Amino acid sequence: MTIRSPSPQRDRIVIIGAGFGGFQAAQSLAGAAAEVLLIDRNNYHTFVPLLYQVATAQLEPSLVAYPVRTKLRGMHNVRFLQAEVKRVDFHHKLVDLGDNLIPYDYLVVATGATFHDYGVPGVAEHAFTLKSLRDALRLRNHVLQCCEQAAFTSDDQERQRLMTFAIVGGGATGVELAGALAEWLRGAVRRDFPELTNWGRVVLLQSGSSLLPEFSQRLGNYTHRHLGRLGVQVHLNAKVTACSDQGIELSDGDAIAAATVVWAAGVTANPPTLAQPSHQKAKGKLALRETLQLVEHDNVYAIGDVAYFEQSGEALAGVAPAALQQGVAVARNLRRQLASESPRPFRYLNKGRLAIIGGYGGVGSVLGINFGGWLAWLMWLLVHVVYLPGYRSRLLVLLTWVQNYIMGDRALRQLSAQTYFKS
Amino acid sequence: MTIRSPSPQRDRIVIIGAGFGGFQAAQSLAGAAAEVLLIDRNNYHTFVPLLYQVATAQLEPSLVAYPVRTKLRGMHNVRFLQAEVKRVDFHHKLVDLGDNLIPYDYLVVATGATFHDYGVPGVAEHAFTLKSLRDALRLRNHVLQCCEQAAFTSDDQERQRLMTFAIVGGGATGVELAGALAEWLRGAVRRDFPELTNWGRVVLLQSGSSLLPEFSQRLGNYTHRHLGRLGVQVHLNAKVTACSDQGIELSDGDAIAAATVVWAAGVTANPPTLAQPSHQKAKGKLALRETLQLVEHDNVYAIGDVAYFEQSGEALAGVAPAALQQGVAVARNLRRQLASESPRPFRYLNKGRLAIIGGYGGVGSVLGINFGGWLAWLMWLLVHVVYLPGYRSRLLVLLTWVQNYIMGDRALRQLSAQTYFKS
Repeated sequence: MTIRSPSPQRDRIVIIGAGFGGFQAAQSLAGAAAEVLLIDRNNYHTFVPLLYQVATAQLEPSLVAYPVRTKLRGMHNVRFLQAEVKRVDFHHKLVDLGDNLIPYDYLVVATGATFHDYGVPGVAEHAFTLKSLRDALRLRNHVLQCCEQAAFTSDDQERQRLMTFAIVGGGATGVELAGALAEWLRGAVRRDFPELTNWGRVVLLQSGSSLLPEFSQRLGNYTHRHLGRLGVQVHLNAKVTACSDQGIELSDGDAIAAATVVWAAGVTANPPTLAQPSHQKAKGKLALRETLQLVEHDNVYAIGDVAYFEQSGEALAGVAPAALQQGVAVARNLRRQLASESPRPFRYLNKGRLAIIGGYGGVGSVLGINFGGWLAWLMWLLVHVVYLPGYRSRLLVLLTWVQNYIMGDRALRQLSAQTYFKS
Repeated sequence: MTIRSPSPQRDRIVIIGAGFGGFQAAQSLAGAAAEVLLIDRNNYHTFVPLLYQVATAQLEPSLVAYPVRTKLRGMHNVRFLQAEVKRVDFHHKLVDLGDNLIPYDYLVVATGATFHDYGVPGVAEHAFTLKSLRDALRLRNHVLQCCEQAAFTSDDQERQRLMTFAIVGGGATGVELAGALAEWLRGAVRRDFPELTNWGRVVLLQSGSSLLPEFSQRLGNYTHRHLGRLGVQVHLNAKVTACSDQGIELSDGDAIAAATVVWAAGVTANPPTLAQPSHQKAKGKLALRETLQLVEHDNVYAIGDVAYFEQSGEALAGVAPAALQQGVAVARNLRRQLASESPRPFRYLNKGRLAIIGGYGGVGSVLGINFGGWLAWLMWLLVHVVYLPGYRSRLLVLLTWVQNYIMGDRALRQLSAQTYFKS
């Protein structure tokens, strides 16, 4: 069945993906002279930077997921459709949902990235990732199940395996998760499981020679020391060659017995299946003009992690501020096209970078100044609470953090897998 | 493997089930001269009376689930084990977990009740129930999926089926859910789904001639009128003969096309599999002495919905206050047995009953006075917030309710099934 626009006399803009870029583009198109249809497989926008706090039982899942429809209330030209996109046909201007076809006049591809295993065997089957709310809940539930099992077993070796958590990847996600996991195990888990005389082992494996390579070497060293103080074992120049339900193997022949392996080592673009091949760059990203239009199609834009954009000779990093700014720029260019004006080039305004380690530690690089310590930690928290959608989430996240840090405990309930996944 | 007590010189009390009765018994045994082991398949205690508010997106799931281990912190003789009990052997005094055996000296069976389909075909496969947190989340997600699909379909008949919600059973659960569902559909759902010109149909089917039969006929009539004002269609004397994915069939030949059928028509006791048959009464409940011990075994107690207890010639209703009082009484009798004293008879102190309808309506029967209206509504909310375990839940539940009632909206996010169940 072909789903026509409710106002066939107006152009229809279809946006695929309600992540930072797509959700922003839809909001910036409120009131435009076109029907906008935003499509996502979930009916919520995920605030990905805080997923690691869901995975470590710091935040309620619903605080990092904002219902798309609630945000679009009152934007009368913007509609939402919860669906999985099967294929995009640029020639016929159709988005194929399997059982339905959606015709479009303009298209915005904002489907983000997915995890990349770099060909390491066993990663897809056995490792946890942290790209979606479901991933975060799975990881949280799994950690709690490991603790429950470890509390009950009388086999010392098995208990050690259950309480070993290996994180592969020393970028922002790996560092954040390692710090938060160590804090959780030493805090709430230790109090809730008096049977566990040992609070578990968190191992962070980085293939390169420094943590957080997007920051300076000095901040990488600071991060290494700070994680060490939190009880995280950092292994640099560690190359993982295999992953199984027993743990991981390294290129130097070492093996780490771990019931939990988290893969935070890298991502690849996640474009929809295309009926006509499009020019793709590094990591499968779609090639763009400087106006964010696809090289081949005037009426198709791509933004965020699925798009390859170069500025001053360098590819833009896959970070939320870049996707948000691109969402605004695409909406502006679409309005120009609707008014028969030509789109304008996009320029990314880099306001700096921050990463959080945990235990009052963070690193930052803002306006050319590199700094590590509690100021970067506090700035990270404040920036993220400001960008969170919805005043209710902001308030509750702030209150939860205050409670967590004052009590040194987890306010959030230690609910295990069966709540969500078992019958 | 047989799991021995960490202090083999002391008696071991095993409690199966961390519902109202079992969780209370464990807490009341803190400091007793025995090792206490509480077993439940979930690592949390579920506050069942508020599940209908989770199912209707009023409350966060974690607010009605309290982590057992957190509550037991500091009770050094009480341990928790997350496991499924396969069988109980009274003669050998063993609880069988499948791969492990737990020996006990005293046993408390507090495994509650499960839904009962009265032999109506299709109920087990197609109907939703509301006995666990998972049930509540499944129902919430399903309602939201029905709305998403209804917003998208161009088939009027299908849209009507998707937006019809049939609730079978006119007791407290059915009435509460019907009222809350009608409020949800007319409030947040209507605002979030401008495509839906019709806000859905809630049908409540009661096999008897009055709603809330445990209250007076006058309050049943008041409940009927009040639900009508909220937009609920009440059918009295309606007997459901079949349930399918298309809806339900009634004994008078009528059929209701409904994508959602909730079975709130009754429960049956849910004892563990017993190696030696025990005397069972109505609805499979275990027969008790007046001391709450099993008729056949001095060292085994049963409490709550799994136990049959008669007082003044009437069976005790399966309500939380009865289970809580029994939990306290069992702990007291166990302490007496440990001190070689004989257990004492249990007496239930009935403080009255309350039921909530929604829309500022409720009914109550307290100290022989029957009343319906906003006072009963308010009393229901206050009593339940007081009995909720944990100050954090109490505060957040209160704040959520205030926000819901002031805004006429749902503070909670409209997250759909994919968060929890799909990949």
